[in-house]
Amino acid sequence: MATLCRPAIAVPEHVITLEQTVELARELHPDHPQLELAVRLISNTGVRTRRLVQPIETTLKHPGFTTRNAVYEAEAKTRVPEAVVRALGHAELTPRDIDMIVYVSCTGFMMPSMTAWLINSMGFRPETRQLPIAQLGCAAGGAAINRAHDFCSAYPRSNVLIVSCEFCSLCYQPTDLAVGNLLSNGLFGDAVAAAVVRGEGGTGVQLERNGSHLVPDTEDWISYAVRDTGFHFMLDKRVPGTMSVLAPAMREMAEPHDWDISGLDFYIVHAGGPRILDDLCQYLDVGAEMFRYSRATLTERGNIASAVIFDALDRFFEDGGAEHGARGVIAGFGPGITAELTLGTWSVGGRESGQIEREVILPPPVLMAGSDAAG
Amino acid sequence: MATLCRPAIAVPEHVITLEQTVELARELHPDHPQLELAVRLISNTGVRTRRLVQPIETTLKHPGFTTRNAVYEAEAKTRVPEAVVRALGHAELTPRDIDMIVYVSCTGFMMPSMTAWLINSMGFRPETRQLPIAQLGCAAGGAAINRAHDFCSAYPRSNVLIVSCEFCSLCYQPTDLAVGNLLSNGLFGDAVAAAVVRGEGGTGVQLERNGSHLVPDTEDWISYAVRDTGFHFMLDKRVPGTMSVLAPAMREMAEPHDWDISGLDFYIVHAGGPRILDDLCQYLDVGAEMFRYSRATLTERGNIASAVIFDALDRFFEDGGAEHGARGVIAGFGPGITAELTLGTWSVGGRESGQIEREVILPPPVLMAGSDAAG
Repeated sequence: MATLCRPAIAVPEHVITLEQTVELARELHPDHPQLELAVRLISNTGVRTRRLVQPIETTLKHPGFTTRNAVYEAEAKTRVPEAVVRALGHAELTPRDIDMIVYVSCTGFMMPSMTAWLINSMGFRPETRQLPIAQLGCAAGGAAINRAHDFCSAYPRSNVLIVSCEFCSLCYQPTDLAVGNLLSNGLFGDAVAAAVVRGEGGTGVQLERNGSHLVPDTEDWISYAVRDTGFHFMLDKRVPGTMSVLAPAMREMAEPHDWDISGLDFYIVHAGGPRILDDLCQYLDVGAEMFRYSRATLTERGNIASAVIFDALDRFFEDGGAEHGARGVIAGFGPGITAELTLGTWSVGGRESGQIEREVILPPPVLMAGSDAAG
Repeated sequence: MATLCRPAIAVPEHVITLEQTVELARELHPDHPQLELAVRLISNTGVRTRRLVQPIETTLKHPGFTTRNAVYEAEAKTRVPEAVVRALGHAELTPRDIDMIVYVSCTGFMMPSMTAWLINSMGFRPETRQLPIAQLGCAAGGAAINRAHDFCSAYPRSNVLIVSCEFCSLCYQPTDLAVGNLLSNGLFGDAVAAAVVRGEGGTGVQLERNGSHLVPDTEDWISYAVRDTGFHFMLDKRVPGTMSVLAPAMREMAEPHDWDISGLDFYIVHAGGPRILDDLCQYLDVGAEMFRYSRATLTERGNIASAVIFDALDRFFEDGGAEHGARGVIAGFGPGITAELTLGTWSVGGRESGQIEREVILPPPVLMAGSDAAG
């Protein structure tokens, strides 16, 4: 069975803190009628720091879509390879072992896609399948895992490289002044993530079952307006309530698998904002500490779109993972409103999850360093 | 095994002929130093008519990327559903039977993708997997078939709907004046195609094996420059020679399957231009009449990007298909330079290709009506 190995995360060097963000909001929009609401919303996100590919002064200027997209391409080519090398290392594979590359990113557009560039410049085989996905937003990380899982189900000995490259700061639109925009300006961050799904062997989350759920008639709740000035992120105020529908969808997906979604051993979910995590605690009847990895990602890096679940998963690995056979869920949420859900078991060295052993291979989960601030 | 059922094609109502195209080129670029070369190249494409979503006068105006993309969305929502209904009818399925929608299009960008809109407005289940692909260009039709095939291999009883929506005329850029641009302005057309891959049953091409091939270091041969004015198509003059590399890749993919790529019963290939078809005849040592379906698509509709292979396949169905068990290849070519290849056998009513019977279920292939002009 396919195993999602330890991700590699690369965050850029330019840091912006919550305090700086709030200060900037006050500086840029002193007369905005809802400034105080926006500041309160930003403060409530729990995002303390974010990383950006450019200094904040450069980020705030809009040089036009032509330049923005050129910056995207240059930054992606600069930052992605190192993460890919580390992810391959975690999976103990080389580029020649990879059969498909799933590249997800909603913050820049290239044709040919980065998949072609990666194959040409990093020694992947010309036969490597290319699956670039640009239109699933924050749900694309989950979709990437799920399509990689499907591919390994179709071809059991194959290996899939996933790359998530999200430079949300390149979608900053200075003229978008709705409260949802001001909030977004304080919420999103930049990051690159890479991870390998091994068809055989590997330590990590053995992928058992996946599913997707679209919440009916919510297409305009999270969306891009595509304009001369690039992608304009639109956030509806109803979005934070989405978990009331998606939590039951998660439960329904787990039931035919005879799993109780409220009783799992780990939860790696998209932390789009704090309300998602709070609501999942409530609707799934799960303690807040179970979402500590996602919460830490949100706190330290902001909403890094499709990369969130990989960053949270990396923290889970860093924390020692779980006992062999421990059950968990990975969930990406994004525009549609779409949820991409994965059920999996922690697997050590590629042993089938059926072979549950009670010997403790790795230390049991403990609160991660720094999680106090996050939890 | 998965079977690619009969596609449904929808072409828009506005027709432009070769004569009108040449006349326009002369009108718009009277002083272009390479006008005669461009006119000769356009005439040599063999494209006699193309269909456009807007009248030619509107097509020639560039109203800005904001408006262009809004037109894309409106036209897609107007034109896609009817093709989807027909494709489902060909496969004898309803929207509730579909497990994944693969939507391929490189001529407009939406988030959420059209997959969400289709699920919401056409009665697909909320659990339907969404796979929107925007960055594989003309190769995306082949990629859609191949990922659908993989999905049905992973989940043998599932069904996948493929939609290809290409409004190439919405990427017309009046200020792009290289010879490659002038040629492209006379080559590309608009179309919508839909087709279902059934996991079980169905008449059509039973999917046996698929593969991908990237020609090393050709990323800039076919590409988009992404600008404030939208997608700018860039065509390198080396592109027409690509088959010298891709024909051997096709042969290599067929060999482990014990098939001789030169001796197949049908060939459904992307007709990006006439040279592709001529070269494949030479490199694969196959008669020109074997490419009559692709040639007819090019002649009557131009290069309709990822929809070409579905239009050509529809002509093969219209022509009666082949004997049960007849062997063929479907090949999409696009930016990268990438080839997406499928080996398949003609299958009647979902019988496995192993059960080859010599009774003739459908008439053997004959030259299609109108193919004289095309061949």
